[in-house]
Amino acid sequence: MLEVFKVAIVGASGYTGGELLRILAVHPKVEVKVATSREYAGKPVYYAHPHLRGIYRRLKFTKLESPEQLADVVGDVDLVFLALPHKVSLHFVPKALEIGLKVVDLSADYRLKRIEDYKRWYGYEHPYPDLLEKAVYGIPELYGEKIKGAQLVANPGCNATSSILAVVPIASAGFIDLDHLVVDVKVGSSEAGAKPYRGGHHPEREGTARPYDASGHRHVAELEQAIRDFTGKDVRVGFTPHAVSMIRGSLASAYSWLTKDVKDLDVQRAYAKFYAGKPFIKIIRGPPMPYPDVKNVYGSNYAEVGFALDKRVGRLAMFAAIDNLMKGAAGVAVQNMNLMLGIEEDEGLKYLMPVRP
Amino acid sequence: MLEVFKVAIVGASGYTGGELLRILAVHPKVEVKVATSREYAGKPVYYAHPHLRGIYRRLKFTKLESPEQLADVVGDVDLVFLALPHKVSLHFVPKALEIGLKVVDLSADYRLKRIEDYKRWYGYEHPYPDLLEKAVYGIPELYGEKIKGAQLVANPGCNATSSILAVVPIASAGFIDLDHLVVDVKVGSSEAGAKPYRGGHHPEREGTARPYDASGHRHVAELEQAIRDFTGKDVRVGFTPHAVSMIRGSLASAYSWLTKDVKDLDVQRAYAKFYAGKPFIKIIRGPPMPYPDVKNVYGSNYAEVGFALDKRVGRLAMFAAIDNLMKGAAGVAVQNMNLMLGIEEDEGLKYLMPVRP
Amino acid sequence: MLEVFKVAIVGASGYTGGELLRILAVHPKVEVKVATSREYAGKPVYYAHPHLRGIYRRLKFTKLESPEQLADVVGDVDLVFLALPHKVSLHFVPKALEIGLKVVDLSADYRLKRIEDYKRWYGYEHPYPDLLEKAVYGIPELYGEKIKGAQLVANPGCNATSSILAVVPIASAGFIDLDHLVVDVKVGSSEAGAKPYRGGHHPEREGTARPYDASGHRHVAELEQAIRDFTGKDVRVGFTPHAVSMIRGSLASAYSWLTKDVKDLDVQRAYAKFYAGKPFIKIIRGPPMPYPDVKNVYGSNYAEVGFALDKRVGRLAMFAAIDNLMKGAAGVAVQNMNLMLGIEEDEGLKYLMPVRP
Amino acid sequence: MLEVFKVAIVGASGYTGGELLRILAVHPKVEVKVATSREYAGKPVYYAHPHLRGIYRRLKFTKLESPEQLADVVGDVDLVFLALPHKVSLHFVPKALEIGLKVVDLSADYRLKRIEDYKRWYGYEHPYPDLLEKAVYGIPELYGEKIKGAQLVANPGCNATSSILAVVPIASAGFIDLDHLVVDVKVGSSEAGAKPYRGGHHPEREGTARPYDASGHRHVAELEQAIRDFTGKDVRVGFTPHAVSMIRGSLASAYSWLTKDVKDLDVQRAYAKFYAGKPFIKIIRGPPMPYPDVKNVYGSNYAEVGFALDKRVGRLAMFAAIDNLMKGAAGVAVQNMNLMLGIEEDEGLKYLMPVRP
Repeated sequence: MLEVFKVAIVGASGYTGGELLRILAVHPKVEVKVATSREYAGKPVYYAHPHLRGIYRRLKFTKLESPEQLADVVGDVDLVFLALPHKVSLHFVPKALEIGLKVVDLSADYRLKRIEDYKRWYGYEHPYPDLLEKAVYGIPELYGEKIKGAQLVANPGCNATSSILAVVPIASAGFIDLDHLVVDVKVGSSEAGAKPYRGGHHPEREGTARPYDASGHRHVAELEQAIRDFTGKDVRVGFTPHAVSMIRGSLASAYSWLTKDVKDLDVQRAYAKFYAGKPFIKIIRGPPMPYPDVKNVYGSNYAEVGFALDKRVGRLAMFAAIDNLMKGAAGVAVQNMNLMLGIEEDEGLKYLMPVRP
Repeated sequence: MLEVFKVAIVGASGYTGGELLRILAVHPKVEVKVATSREYAGKPVYYAHPHLRGIYRRLKFTKLESPEQLADVVGDVDLVFLALPHKVSLHFVPKALEIGLKVVDLSADYRLKRIEDYKRWYGYEHPYPDLLEKAVYGIPELYGEKIKGAQLVANPGCNATSSILAVVPIASAGFIDLDHLVVDVKVGSSEAGAKPYRGGHHPEREGTARPYDASGHRHVAELEQAIRDFTGKDVRVGFTPHAVSMIRGSLASAYSWLTKDVKDLDVQRAYAKFYAGKPFIKIIRGPPMPYPDVKNVYGSNYAEVGFALDKRVGRLAMFAAIDNLMKGAAGVAVQNMNLMLGIEEDEGLKYLMPVRP
Repeated sequence: MLEVFKVAIVGASGYTGGELLRILAVHPKVEVKVATSREYAGKPVYYAHPHLRGIYRRLKFTKLESPEQLADVVGDVDLVFLALPHKVSLHFVPKALEIGLKVVDLSADYRLKRIEDYKRWYGYEHPYPDLLEKAVYGIPELYGEKIKGAQLVANPGCNATSSILAVVPIASAGFIDLDHLVVDVKVGSSEAGAKPYRGGHHPEREGTARPYDASGHRHVAELEQAIRDFTGKDVRVGFTPHAVSMIRGSLASAYSWLTKDVKDLDVQRAYAKFYAGKPFIKIIRGPPMPYPDVKNVYGSNYAEVGFALDKRVGRLAMFAAIDNLMKGAAGVAVQNMNLMLGIEEDEGLKYLMPVRP
Repeated sequence: MLEVFKVAIVGASGYTGGELLRILAVHPKVEVKVATSREYAGKPVYYAHPHLRGIYRRLKFTKLESPEQLADVVGDVDLVFLALPHKVSLHFVPKALEIGLKVVDLSADYRLKRIEDYKRWYGYEHPYPDLLEKAVYGIPELYGEKIKGAQLVANPGCNATSSILAVVPIASAGFIDLDHLVVDVKVGSSEAGAKPYRGGHHPEREGTARPYDASGHRHVAELEQAIRDFTGKDVRVGFTPHAVSMIRGSLASAYSWLTKDVKDLDVQRAYAKFYAGKPFIKIIRGPPMPYPDVKNVYGSNYAEVGFALDKRVGRLAMFAAIDNLMKGAAGVAVQNMNLMLGIEEDEGLKYLMPVRP
């Protein structure tokens, strides 16, 4: 008989919660037993996610107001997804671990290893340094083995994910000058979440192309940490996200200068070696499209990774394109869940083909 | 042991061909053995469909230049999808039937029963009147039983599908004045296919809202035929499609006047009764969104159906929203294939959840 | 010496206020002396309208909290634009008239002549029936002569404008069955104003095509009133607006059945006669685009008007496309202002060419 | 009596030709006497530009097939705009100069000073080295004085313009490490012109975010030339354009590292000094939007310029946003024309306010 794991989604009315529900609706080995939302408590899940009308017929949002209620509300599931705002998730994590649940935390609260980084980037003193140590950073292509044994996985930021997937294999190969590394990210409107605000209002957001947080964006801390883990070097990276006119997608374009005489094939091999056997990475070369495009991964958990070597300038451009709500949030969360529960890595995710055009 | 059927896609480099490939990549009971394309012959299928890179690793486009080559090229598959232009498909169908294949024809060449309609709407004398008779019109919610036994299914037009799904249950219930029925359709750019042309060029198409073929569009013949089949009445419907600024989606808004004192609940019941047990129809009432929206079915085979009764005017508005490439083309083609091959109706399609936002 | 009129804009931080500022920045005979906003009081106007940075260098938003402060705040201008929400404008109008200002009111509060219509459509008892009588409905192509002498112009609704421009000339010519008239409008996201809300959030709004207020939308009252004015007949029109995926534009597609044997040329002549000498109406026939398109009037005060005669069905489709913030709001407000102040009708508006592609 | 100059537009059916027509329709001192097009010869100009229906009532496209016919076709105008493809323009320029016309050439054929650059970037031997010398590169904010006296102005590339406007003032101030300079450009679909092609087909282009020509794009040669002119240094810049999901706009994000201890205010002053008195440059600082956005300049000739200093990294991000068809093509062409003909620099352009939202 097929074993079916039970999971809960805490904070299920936002976009990442909605994507978790969408993915898990067709996951053969997992069932969503609980979905919480303060705003929609008591309402069917399709109230927040109208495209799921008819898909989840009985599931309603449950109210959950504090970590103390977690055991009562979430009950005896195998794993909990915390899709809560930063700093709200902070205190739910220890409680969830305490009652024996595996945790995939989609907030930023457990992503960084260095306690001082929370002060710098998030402005608070982290109260659980031991848990920071215990948490595994949730990019399976980098930390897959650790994730398999983890109780707590800190799901990565979407722009951090695209940047890391583009840069780390090459940084790790020692091809580029890490003192001159800059990342320019283009991201869709869903990245800012479901809550309406002026800058995300359709007449304001559609047709835009503009940088934001250009003097330093928090996601760079995750990138610098991953580079440190794979090169041993403490680097400072320039990182500038841009709002562009689309709903989904995060495209990272990273630029650096070559430190040695590297050829196209060397770069390609470095990526191929790093990502060997990884089911969701596509290394893009040659026709019909020589570089990654967010359009090719829309709605799916795939990442496209590619590069361009500008020999005249001695510069390497490294690219990665993901769907920010999937490989950048809910998709990778399910990939992490699969690894943590001993399910095949791509289960439930391989059905979700990219939608294009 | 699981039986796996073999299928071929003739004309697989266009958008409907691409969607067939996307859907069948995750269909557990079907394998695509052959995909033909004159333009891309010899190239991997991802040359035409870059989002399928890495999904189909070995499948390449085969050349197929005439109906005579069909047996050689397509070989011993169980079913063939013909995704060819109108009038090109015409002569492939008899040949495919002759060599014993089941056929889902995505062109318009076998949709209409009355031979004179081909003259009026398509400008040619149909050479195979017996096959017109044999063909089953491929909307499973209307003709599901016939489709199960069919050798030849004529897959419907996308705008015809949205219109028929909105109108036929209510026409069939006798609630509306069929002499005053008008359908206004809003459709995305992918409806016109993959071939570039001035009106579909991005700078021309994005931001547009304009009628086209406003003095009479071919798809109305399919709607009138379906109304005739279900009411016995020969009607003439005003039908005006509009190009609006999106890639996918066909929203039909049909308007007529009530012939009797009908209440909201009566209309709802008429739809519910007509669509009882149909896995891909969602009848939309009440919160969070009272009417269909193409956004809620994006990338999926679902149809949203709904209505609004304007009591002051005595008018009924009937709506249906579909993804034109899915429920309006490739999705329903696979649904038809399932029925024809004795597979469960929603197999391979239920995995493809709608993508929103 | 060139006479320059002085105007004030009350409620200048919204989208129509922003368009008034944009238009009047290049109007040679008018100067904006006052722009009020409660939210942005004390801030430069570009705080609400970042594209006007550097255009208005000194103009700041003034606070205005009640009709009583009007004289003090607005001072001795010649004309005031009231760009306030419905029901808020209601009491500002009599006060503005009392202190001797000409008024263009962009709310719905003075558009309807029949006092009972305010109860039905807006849910309140109108306190100033005498002013309703005095107010002139601000579509210059219909009521231009009256507007010239008016103290108070009630600026029309955007969807009412597109509908009226399409229908009234033909209704007035007696060609169509007014008992079977239906209007289907497609409108952009800016129509709902600058205030963020869930349905207007970019990830929700982009890619949508859905009806709203489908059981009866307020703007139909303006259309029925205009038809009454030009035909003497009291009609009830079915009217359904649709949110489609664009920022600007209102396209009305009106459908009715012919009452007599009317030819293409008759319809064309009816429009041509009705709109003779009107500077902002373009009657669309023939190549390169046979029907109106909102894309062709983007950013401008022009309206495109056209039609399609479906002889098989005996149906006439009537179309009009406008920019909802321009010809549907701020543009026509300036056109009205020109007429009221004795300025040439197209002054300041003819510079604003439509932007396409 | 007002002097009115006469101009011709050669190649007027493309997007830049269309924008020239749009701008000059409201230019008080210039009249378009001739507009040529081979494809549309004999047709009214609105056949290619449907939004100009009713604006140009008599102007029709003239046929012009070779430079030899130039005198006959173009006649006695004061200035000719050449909006022809690269390499086609090449031989029209000397002929136009020969018959005494002032020339604004919108192709790339006269932009670069070094003859070897044509070989490298465009793959041809330039046959008129003397004219290369004579041509003035048409960015008025850099070369305004020379443009005033020029017979031949080489209108710049759109992505070159945004890059140059962002970088040159700071490079010229000596603040940045020119050996580590990278430019990442985001550009709309209209940049590729009016001719339909697969990558520009709406279903392919909308929703995309992808790099192209990532190993070296021709426009970088213009940027390197401008840096050389203002610093005396021969630099090699990494330059990667990206197709993003919008019609218009070019946003350049340039990154380099600081060579000295520079503060925010120093950077701001460097821009302010460089652009003092330039009517179309807006330096963006502070609320409501701290950085340039293409949305704020849509449809206009303005450029927004801004920056972000990332002190932690010692990196400076420099931004410029333009409308690629206006400040990046037709708008600046008219600005150049004004200077060449002794008209005020902003004449005819100041009316065209940016359209937003």
